[in-house]
Amino acid sequence: MTLKLYFAPGACSFVPHVLLELSGAEFEPVMVKLHKGEQNSEDYKAINPRGQVPVLVQDGQPITQILAIVLHLDQLFPQMGLLPAEPMARAKALSTLAWMNNTVHPTFTHIFMPQKFSDQSDVQAALKPYNTQLFRGMLAELQNLVIAAEQQSQPWLGGTRIGALDAYSLTLARWGTIAGIGADEHPALWRFVEKVAAEPAVARVIARERLQLNMSAPA
Amino acid sequence: MTLKLYFAPGACSFVPHVLLELSGAEFEPVMVKLHKGEQNSEDYKAINPRGQVPVLVQDGQPITQILAIVLHLDQLFPQMGLLPAEPMARAKALSTLAWMNNTVHPTFTHIFMPQKFSDQSDVQAALKPYNTQLFRGMLAELQNLVIAAEQQSQPWLGGTRIGALDAYSLTLARWGTIAGIGADEHPALWRFVEKVAAEPAVARVIARERLQLNMSAPA
Repeated sequence: MTLKLYFAPGACSFVPHVLLELSGAEFEPVMVKLHKGEQNSEDYKAINPRGQVPVLVQDGQPITQILAIVLHLDQLFPQMGLLPAEPMARAKALSTLAWMNNTVHPTFTHIFMPQKFSDQSDVQAALKPYNTQLFRGMLAELQNLVIAAEQQSQPWLGGTRIGALDAYSLTLARWGTIAGIGADEHPALWRFVEKVAAEPAVARVIARERLQLNMSAPA
Repeated sequence: MTLKLYFAPGACSFVPHVLLELSGAEFEPVMVKLHKGEQNSEDYKAINPRGQVPVLVQDGQPITQILAIVLHLDQLFPQMGLLPAEPMARAKALSTLAWMNNTVHPTFTHIFMPQKFSDQSDVQAALKPYNTQLFRGMLAELQNLVIAAEQQSQPWLGGTRIGALDAYSLTLARWGTIAGIGADEHPALWRFVEKVAAEPAVARVIARERLQLNMSAPA
């Protein structure tokens, strides 16, 4: 089996990038330079017609969408516990993952790429502050999940093993600092993000993507 | 085991509603009247603090989010083939399901509930036509999936068994007619939707939710 991951530094492809690194499997990370528009090249559209990262390619077969890739990696590497195995814990973890993906993530898109939702510059400008407020509230909600896990003596959001929810939390909190939401606004969330970042597999991905974690701190 | 589904007529809760009906399992459908604001009542927020449908309650434990509920029902009723079992077919079906849920569905939200993205009435008004165009393109993309399945002699989007993708397609195409996108714009999609609607389990859910399929046709 060969595995290839198309990722863009700092994008949500960070999530499967971390899971692959955690799995210990051999895989080829392929960087897609979004600022150069590589995602819109003919070559890339042949892999993903929607021009998005991430794409996981297994033996020549592309799989798109975070949720699908996470579930596929969990099936490939069940011993890693990337998602909880117990049915109700698994359902709750997948529910949180879906919320991150269909609500928190697109709310940031309204701030970072408002041109996806309108071609009028005044509408784009108006979307930013409103959705920044929404995003701030969602990071508070995410922090509550972190606090709830700590109160149940769970080291990670999915339970005893680090996994998809932890990696996505780091990405979303980091995006918050791009949107002007300081790390000091959600201290428990950021203590958790730093714990995630310190895990060796995560640290390797951060180094490969050359990520600065807190984008509002001096570089 | 007891199963209870909180649904709202015509909402995306149609998807798990259909899957439960397909499963043949006993379940209690509980209607939530969104136009009366029941989703924001204290009682409902105790079940789902985000005030959304659907919620599947299994033995008192609530599960939110379409993706999580679909995967949970697939695990509860593996014999139904609600999602394909073969790993790569499953990954591709989940990728399409995630796209429906994080892209197509929220695009309709910009048309139907633009107040979720801005508190300014002029911004809300501007979001509608732009996102209607996007939604039109997404329904065309969905129609291409239907045509591709037909060309591979697959009766349903996930393969040989009716499932989550088929039910979601019906919901999204129906929403298109609410947004002013006529059924005649995507004839192959609508032929498929009518086939989905004619399945006995689906027809029972349509009757229980009292749904008019094509909202631009005379009632």
